Amino acid sequence: MRMVDLIEKKRDGFELSDEEIQFVISGYTAGDIADYQMSAFLMAVYFQDMTENERAALTLAMVDSGDRIDLSAIQGIKVDKHSTGGVGDTTTLVLGPLVAACGVPVAKMSGRGLGHTGGTIDKLEAIEGFHVELTTDEFIQQVNDKKLAVVGQSGNLTPADKKMYALRDVTATVNSIPLIASSIMSKKIAAGADAIVLDVKTGEGAFMKTAEDAEKLAHAMVSIGNATGRKTMAIISDMSQPLGFAIGNALEVKEAIDTLQGKGPEDLTELCLVLGSQMVVLGGKASTLEEARSMLEKAMETGQALQMFKQLIESQGGNSKVVENPELLPQAKVTEQLLSQQEGYISFMEADEIGTAAMVLGAGRAAKDSEIDLAVGIVLHKKVGDFVRKGEALATIHANTEELAECMEMLYNSIEFTKEPVDKPQLISAVITE
Amino acid sequence: MRMVDLIEKKRDGFELSDEEIQFVISGYTAGDIADYQMSAFLMAVYFQDMTENERAALTLAMVDSGDRIDLSAIQGIKVDKHSTGGVGDTTTLVLGPLVAACGVPVAKMSGRGLGHTGGTIDKLEAIEGFHVELTTDEFIQQVNDKKLAVVGQSGNLTPADKKMYALRDVTATVNSIPLIASSIMSKKIAAGADAIVLDVKTGEGAFMKTAEDAEKLAHAMVSIGNATGRKTMAIISDMSQPLGFAIGNALEVKEAIDTLQGKGPEDLTELCLVLGSQMVVLGGKASTLEEARSMLEKAMETGQALQMFKQLIESQGGNSKVVENPELLPQAKVTEQLLSQQEGYISFMEADEIGTAAMVLGAGRAAKDSEIDLAVGIVLHKKVGDFVRKGEALATIHANTEELAECMEMLYNSIEFTKEPVDKPQLISAVITE
Repeated sequence: MRMVDLIEKKRDGFELSDEEIQFVISGYTAGDIADYQMSAFLMAVYFQDMTENERAALTLAMVDSGDRIDLSAIQGIKVDKHSTGGVGDTTTLVLGPLVAACGVPVAKMSGRGLGHTGGTIDKLEAIEGFHVELTTDEFIQQVNDKKLAVVGQSGNLTPADKKMYALRDVTATVNSIPLIASSIMSKKIAAGADAIVLDVKTGEGAFMKTAEDAEKLAHAMVSIGNATGRKTMAIISDMSQPLGFAIGNALEVKEAIDTLQGKGPEDLTELCLVLGSQMVVLGGKASTLEEARSMLEKAMETGQALQMFKQLIESQGGNSKVVENPELLPQAKVTEQLLSQQEGYISFMEADEIGTAAMVLGAGRAAKDSEIDLAVGIVLHKKVGDFVRKGEALATIHANTEELAECMEMLYNSIEFTKEPVDKPQLISAVITE
Repeated sequence: MRMVDLIEKKRDGFELSDEEIQFVISGYTAGDIADYQMSAFLMAVYFQDMTENERAALTLAMVDSGDRIDLSAIQGIKVDKHSTGGVGDTTTLVLGPLVAACGVPVAKMSGRGLGHTGGTIDKLEAIEGFHVELTTDEFIQQVNDKKLAVVGQSGNLTPADKKMYALRDVTATVNSIPLIASSIMSKKIAAGADAIVLDVKTGEGAFMKTAEDAEKLAHAMVSIGNATGRKTMAIISDMSQPLGFAIGNALEVKEAIDTLQGKGPEDLTELCLVLGSQMVVLGGKASTLEEARSMLEKAMETGQALQMFKQLIESQGGNSKVVENPELLPQAKVTEQLLSQQEGYISFMEADEIGTAAMVLGAGRAAKDSEIDLAVGIVLHKKVGDFVRKGEALATIHANTEELAECMEMLYNSIEFTKEPVDKPQLISAVITE
């Protein structure tokens, strides 16, 4: 087999066999196939797409390029959740305890934030003492004992994906549905998931700007999941404005604590209930979504969900007093309100701009090795559809540096007003199961 | 400017500016742009094509990447000819002397053969003593004094094209009209041509297998020529069967000598008259194609054309007695006739198969550094449309090695017969001037 022939085959729109895709991925990972051939291949994929078979084969070849986490020692069906990333997306912090409280084992491997997108690991590290470095044995033990553990990404999982992503980033081949879908799914499969719930974000703050692209990506991932024997479903959720009110690590932890008690923002709560219901059903703890939802609501009402979060914090060395005393979380030196200079209905709050405004404060990373400030961020008081009077507070900024003014200006510029009433954006536009 | 943005721009179908194309080509030549970015860019060009402006800018950027031959010291309009390559294509050997005999200065830079395609330099080296290494001053002096000189490719002409071609060869991006057209035209322009006549071959023995592709390439090259101030025209000529009868270096020199005297194969003679007429008109030595053709025919009849060839050989150190005594050319040890095992009309003689059969004997190079045998080759006695009796000679093989049997089998297998009369293929299917 010669790589140049496989590039040509893909270029000309023919389907590659499993063996051919395995050859490409293992050869590239081993360094036998040069970057310049791989980038030409990826550009050909960009234009010619991949069939369902090719996508599944690509995903499995990337899984095979590295280690797999073996979660078979955990009793029950391991349901993983993945979000394509957004602004103020606190769902994992809520979903983990909530679903675990319903008896589904949650063995969660999470990442850090980059750019305007936050990461679960950063948020948890806002809790004093919380550490995410568990050995695989500790991780499995904790899930068996406590139903819930969250670790950082470790081990040599999907090295092919890492190498390909770095190449795609500099060759304008990131934005390809089969490549995005296989990249995400390979990581979930390598991390040991039996079933996968996907939250595909759409809108200005998301990677997929249009609902059409988000649905394509969702279908692609669900199809890969089903073809590789993992029950998979996806929802398409709105990321035209931030989710919930809080953007920033400690601020989102506090919001998660509120939400676990049923006192969180409406949109975040609803999204957690929808995603959680799917996870509880896939985890075999309820037979219908309605049954699952009432279990989740009950876990919020009875305090079981919050208790589960407290237990997670304690298990991983954190100070669980934050649950009752959120003021123990890192606090910014300055808080300042952003006041509206006009009156009207909010018609638009550009999520990526708001994420970037929070990043400017230090809440997010401009580059992979940037330091972040866990205390700072933005808490919105109004969202799209709300009516605002002149002088009313739109948001509170929590800052430690002089970038406060710049942040406030960016934030204000990201908000649009109109005189006519505006509908709230639809939170969940589609549920995709095949 | 960042290369990744330019890849994306081309990927998304936008037109690159002259400055952007210059950035890509000069950056790649200098090594500032990596192979993996260039190959992704080339694949994007493969799918998105290039506009006329982009093609002209690419061509000039490749010219600017290296040296230019300055032929301004040669009096008159320097008309260059380029063939996209074929089997038994002896036209340059005939056209040079023929056109020079009509007063057009011919400063020809030629290449060597590869695969089933022959090269003019190899053919000339079949003449004892002939050397193609002239300094630029010697080259110009000879054209001024003798109207005709032929040299091998030298100097640092279009290094961008060399580097890009090597990359295209291993990334399945060779077969792209804008890339082929700019590659050819950049070399002609760097070699100092004022006007260019292109012979675009089509059919099994050619790079462009279909007339449609050949016409696209011809239009692309003519358009680049006109956009860069070089009068350019192209003909589309048949390469479904070999041109003329001879395939092999010394054998083609003998055929050229015959043709220069008006005693050559009908198709080769006609092609030389058509291409030559265009060259004489572009060279300003005749005002109509008819006038040019009668000048060329006269040069054949009067012996002036042959005399010009003799003078070329003498000027470049060769033994010009070969012109009167072609048996002084290298002779193969064995000649054997290929006899027909059936009766009928020849419907097909697959040019590339016949070229490969000659290569097997040693007439052509399997790889760039292969040695060739100047004496060996094939002389056809029949061509498509001819009637053949069983036992009649189809061709004579001139061989020095035991590959004779293999060559004969390949040659016979490349010929198809039919009971019904067959038209001869149309030699020239289009003349393209814009």
